[in-house]
Amino acid sequence: MSIQMNQSLSVDCAVFGFNGKSLKVLLIERRYYKPDTRLDKLKLPGAMILENETLPEAAYRVLEEATGLKNVYLKQMDIFSDPKRVAGEELEWINRYHGIQTDRVVTVGYYALVKLDSRTIAYTTAKGAQWVDVDSIQRLAMDHKAILSAALTVLCREMLQSPVAFELLPRKFTIRALQNLYSAVLGIEIDNRNFRKKILASGFLTPTAEKEQGVAHKPAQYYTFNKNAYKKALKDKLKLGFINNWRY
Amino acid sequence: MSIQMNQSLSVDCAVFGFNGKSLKVLLIERRYYKPDTRLDKLKLPGAMILENETLPEAAYRVLEEATGLKNVYLKQMDIFSDPKRVAGEELEWINRYHGIQTDRVVTVGYYALVKLDSRTIAYTTAKGAQWVDVDSIQRLAMDHKAILSAALTVLCREMLQSPVAFELLPRKFTIRALQNLYSAVLGIEIDNRNFRKKILASGFLTPTAEKEQGVAHKPAQYYTFNKNAYKKALKDKLKLGFINNWRY
Repeated sequence: MSIQMNQSLSVDCAVFGFNGKSLKVLLIERRYYKPDTRLDKLKLPGAMILENETLPEAAYRVLEEATGLKNVYLKQMDIFSDPKRVAGEELEWINRYHGIQTDRVVTVGYYALVKLDSRTIAYTTAKGAQWVDVDSIQRLAMDHKAILSAALTVLCREMLQSPVAFELLPRKFTIRALQNLYSAVLGIEIDNRNFRKKILASGFLTPTAEKEQGVAHKPAQYYTFNKNAYKKALKDKLKLGFINNWRY
Repeated sequence: MSIQMNQSLSVDCAVFGFNGKSLKVLLIERRYYKPDTRLDKLKLPGAMILENETLPEAAYRVLEEATGLKNVYLKQMDIFSDPKRVAGEELEWINRYHGIQTDRVVTVGYYALVKLDSRTIAYTTAKGAQWVDVDSIQRLAMDHKAILSAALTVLCREMLQSPVAFELLPRKFTIRALQNLYSAVLGIEIDNRNFRKKILASGFLTPTAEKEQGVAHKPAQYYTFNKNAYKKALKDKLKLGFINNWRY
């Protein structure tokens, strides 16, 4: 085998949002899509790496173009380096779309968590992008379904190990919304009372003076995430000595 | 800016070993090194990705070539995508050495943990590679010092969060050796009695019938790592409910 020449590097981003009920991912329509080809239409936002640009810079550029947002929770996850991950018609589409001639594209998957507020939805809608229920997605362009699956796996793990959930929620949220989010991401039913008890016992939520308005049921209280309490707990835990930190 | 063309992808591996006292990393001499150039001589083992090869496959290939070992603890860490990470004479060396013409090399850093037994040392010595004290390394070729630093950071974190230390120790080890390893990696003094107490209380070490032989001091007992006890503890922890798993 010879050294791979004439290859390209790209980034693809799974941008997650949460509408209070279900987990959404941002999808864009492939440009230059012809209905007569068999290629899947929807894809994750992505880009080829530019000269003088690092991979994280490329990922932030993609994210800003796709969402209008700059300071967003963005993390690199897997690298997708299967030599056949884009081939045939998909590779032809890439070369035609970008006006290049590449033999292979290795892509680095990123995942981002955004707050689905009206401004962001307006921006993405104007761009022709869609927030699609993660559960409803059967197929995507190229290997983007696999990239999305990998991102979901990372999101599940992160949500069990750190308070990233709050990146997806508005600053003020109900405990029910937090529970719905965990339920949606982990794909499990969660007991209301237990969840409420545990999350309040953690000391990481600060109650606000506000309650839900205009709802049929008993209005729920709004909370904010107490970052400082979390940081303090993290520090205290580390003080216990490193052997206690084994993730068992 | 234009899309980056004519680029290469490589893997570079920081292979760590432990000799009972200090942490070592495997370094190789740059081939075609001329003493009259200013380029640093020692580098991490690495390779360009081949056609029909994924990045992990390339990393395992490098590792096997460098150590003779196949089933080794190997993990991907950062991607080094600074457009200027290899430039000038370093880029010329790469092009000359590989017989290619590339404008840019993005590399994926891996780190590996191996048991420094006599067979592995014999293999690497025969290959002309060196196991160098991590603390003594001032400079390396290209940006390999930065890659090594990143690998050390990941190793520190991993050793605090999971039992990867045992990948670096022989199957049977003394508690002192384990303590020395933590001390070497974390760069801190560790209290003997406390360490001994905590590690034994964890229930993850199984005493063997063997003791050190031919030592001047009181011979220490050998232990093995009880993987099953660790796995069980991990499982029990997860049962407690996801909210408890926040890494605080």
